[in-house]
Amino acid sequence: MPGGTRGAADLVAREKAYCQELRKSGEWVHIWRCVGQYANISVFDVADNEALHRILWNLPLFPYMSIEVTPLAQHPSDLLVGEEVA
Amino acid sequence: MPGGTRGAADLVAREKAYCQELRKSGEWVHIWRCVGQYANISVFDVADNEALHRILWNLPLFPYMSIEVTPLAQHPSDLLVGEEVA
Amino acid sequence: MPGGTRGAADLVAREKAYCQELRKSGEWVHIWRCVGQYANISVFDVADNEALHRILWNLPLFPYMSIEVTPLAQHPSDLLVGEEVA
Amino acid sequence: MPGGTRGAADLVAREKAYCQELRKSGEWVHIWRCVGQYANISVFDVADNEALHRILWNLPLFPYMSIEVTPLAQHPSDLLVGEEVA
Amino acid sequence: MPGGTRGAADLVAREKAYCQELRKSGEWVHIWRCVGQYANISVFDVADNEALHRILWNLPLFPYMSIEVTPLAQHPSDLLVGEEVA
Amino acid sequence: MPGGTRGAADLVAREKAYCQELRKSGEWVHIWRCVGQYANISVFDVADNEALHRILWNLPLFPYMSIEVTPLAQHPSDLLVGEEVA
Amino acid sequence: MPGGTRGAADLVAREKAYCQELRKSGEWVHIWRCVGQYANISVFDVADNEALHRILWNLPLFPYMSIEVTPLAQHPSDLLVGEEVA
Amino acid sequence: MPGGTRGAADLVAREKAYCQELRKSGEWVHIWRCVGQYANISVFDVADNEALHRILWNLPLFPYMSIEVTPLAQHPSDLLVGEEVA
Amino acid sequence: MPGGTRGAADLVAREKAYCQELRKSGEWVHIWRCVGQYANISVFDVADNEALHRILWNLPLFPYMSIEVTPLAQHPSDLLVGEEVA
Amino acid sequence: MPGGTRGAADLVAREKAYCQELRKSGEWVHIWRCVGQYANISVFDVADNEALHRILWNLPLFPYMSIEVTPLAQHPSDLLVGEEVA
Repeated sequence: MPGGTRGAADLVAREKAYCQELRKSGEWVHIWRCVGQYANISVFDVADNEALHRILWNLPLFPYMSIEVTPLAQHPSDLLVGEEVA
Repeated sequence: MPGGTRGAADLVAREKAYCQELRKSGEWVHIWRCVGQYANISVFDVADNEALHRILWNLPLFPYMSIEVTPLAQHPSDLLVGEEVA
Repeated sequence: MPGGTRGAADLVAREKAYCQELRKSGEWVHIWRCVGQYANISVFDVADNEALHRILWNLPLFPYMSIEVTPLAQHPSDLLVGEEVA
Repeated sequence: MPGGTRGAADLVAREKAYCQELRKSGEWVHIWRCVGQYANISVFDVADNEALHRILWNLPLFPYMSIEVTPLAQHPSDLLVGEEVA
Repeated sequence: MPGGTRGAADLVAREKAYCQELRKSGEWVHIWRCVGQYANISVFDVADNEALHRILWNLPLFPYMSIEVTPLAQHPSDLLVGEEVA
Repeated sequence: MPGGTRGAADLVAREKAYCQELRKSGEWVHIWRCVGQYANISVFDVADNEALHRILWNLPLFPYMSIEVTPLAQHPSDLLVGEEVA
Repeated sequence: MPGGTRGAADLVAREKAYCQELRKSGEWVHIWRCVGQYANISVFDVADNEALHRILWNLPLFPYMSIEVTPLAQHPSDLLVGEEVA
Repeated sequence: MPGGTRGAADLVAREKAYCQELRKSGEWVHIWRCVGQYANISVFDVADNEALHRILWNLPLFPYMSIEVTPLAQHPSDLLVGEEVA
Repeated sequence: MPGGTRGAADLVAREKAYCQELRKSGEWVHIWRCVGQYANISVFDVADNEALHRILWNLPLFPYMSIEVTPLAQHPSDLLVGEEVA
Repeated sequence: MPGGTRGAADLVAREKAYCQELRKSGEWVHIWRCVGQYANISVFDVADNEALHRILWNLPLFPYMSIEVTPLAQHPSDLLVGEEVA
């Protein structure tokens, strides 16, 4: 990451603020830490693919991330509408 | 699956009932269908590894499933306690 | 495939009819044959993940297929709206 | 990428211009953004392998790209002629 | 393979005849046995993707094969025109 | 690793002290060296996923490690309670 | 597995007895269930490779198993002698 | 590559000269460009493994290459003697 | 394997006889059992690729085997001539 | 590798001396060059896992190597005792 230790801390802080803003807007539905890894599993509820790409592309840490997207739909055993896991 | 078409339908019905019972007890927190696949992503909130193994091992479709477990913990950007995704 | 040679031919015919119906409705935008393989690459333009899953799940050949879904969005160098490739 | 931030921006601009020129000539038929990734899926309609290699080799970003080519042909359920996806 | 030992021997004989016909027409340029495997590496020189797919799809052993196609072009250190390896 | 040879030696010493402290507390139950590799297989006995993540995240060498976690439970042929291998 | 349900139950019982005999002899040091899978991780303490192969080859379920062996040695942070994980 | 742009151009020129010398001697039988990649598929006809290793090890670009060797033999449908693809 | 238990035992006996014949002729230089697996690592010293393919193709168990061939040459730290591992 | 060209040559020389010492002691039984690669396949005959790890860990090139260890045992078709391949 650019800018040394201070630059890194700044990036992580901006990432956290960005995440919490989207959690409040209801688009970033879930986020879990993968145990023992600097990684997370998240679930998004967005209008369409364009919206999801915009959210991920604008993550402050996007240039340093490896992201995999799995499209999700409602499961017959569930009562919720479709979300997208990233 | 054993028992032909009728046996398969019976198994799937038992799987669904088993799932919904655990959803009510609060242990099977989320279930999503993976788009275009006969597969799901689920999140469990259980007491410990023993409890999770007992739940998965007793799935009526367990002998026909390939299961991968990723331990999850609370993410610093979240407010929820740790769950387990399977 | 069940039903021997005749059953297989019937399934393939139903698959083709199903495909062409969705091509006319505008949801199945593209389909190409992968050279040297019994496989295709297709692009879908659908309302949401639920719609895409319903289309794929109801393919007459679905039980015999291995499907991978890659969510697509508009590219800055393009002028079209987002579609989904399966 | 060489030349720092300014060099990178220049390269990306040249990439975009190169792409749009080929889109107008009809050789670069489709381009989609893969959601959540700095990557695209494209379809080319070219005279032969030599033509496709020349196009890809001359991409301004070629030295920084990892490219996979899947030869495509017309699908029996389609009405279009063969293209190549890269 | 269907038809027991006799059916298999018949299929292999038809495969060999089919191969040699295309070798004479100049489309199946090279074929080598991979040492220690029931597999080959072949090079084709064909008009386009449609022609290559027709050749591979009509191989008598096609339903029992796993085929991978790598598009080839002339190398700057070579003097030959582009062929396709399958 | 930062700080040259001296910094590296310091990090390894801190890693060893950290490990032995957790071995005494009973949370880091086993550690084996993988023959011919700068890697280990370890077994942890922890209260929950949060505790395991905290232990791994605070390893002095964490930023330089690639960690894989496999949740374990008691085996019917064993007499011990569930532990977690990392 | 051969012999239908009864044959399978008999095999599993023989597997369990075989395992416990080796646990008592001190050669099969650890066995854990992998959560959500019909699989285990075990640690053996044996005289040499010949002894380990003899133990694994004679497992009643050996013909139905896929086994991976990772040679282990004492870790500098540990106080135990080398064992072998299978 | 060492020596900047000039050093790289020099290396590529030496690689080309080395290749053409071996093409004339009959040991480097074929070379094709993989479409869209800085890679080639080549076929060698050499006395033995020692000869092939000497050729590949002395490639001017060897330190920057990732090479895979597949031993080839004459195919029953062919009339040529065994060569080696690298 | 065909012919039930008796057929299998017969095949394994023929495999062993075939192996020992080639060990005596000096072509099958080494054979080791991979611990915990129904698999071996072997080293062959043969005239050329044709000879190696003929040996492997005629293994009585060839139709039930998955074989990988790695061409070997003399190592500068060794004093032996090139052999081939399969 | 540290120390530029001279440092690298020194390391390789030390590696060779270390190897030949162990070849004389009988612990490093075989070493072959993998054709076309800066890699080798070796067979060791050692007292136990501790001895093998000590040998590999002390290779002058160990920090720059990627090592895979496959435990070997005597094959029923062979007359030699167990060795370990690395």
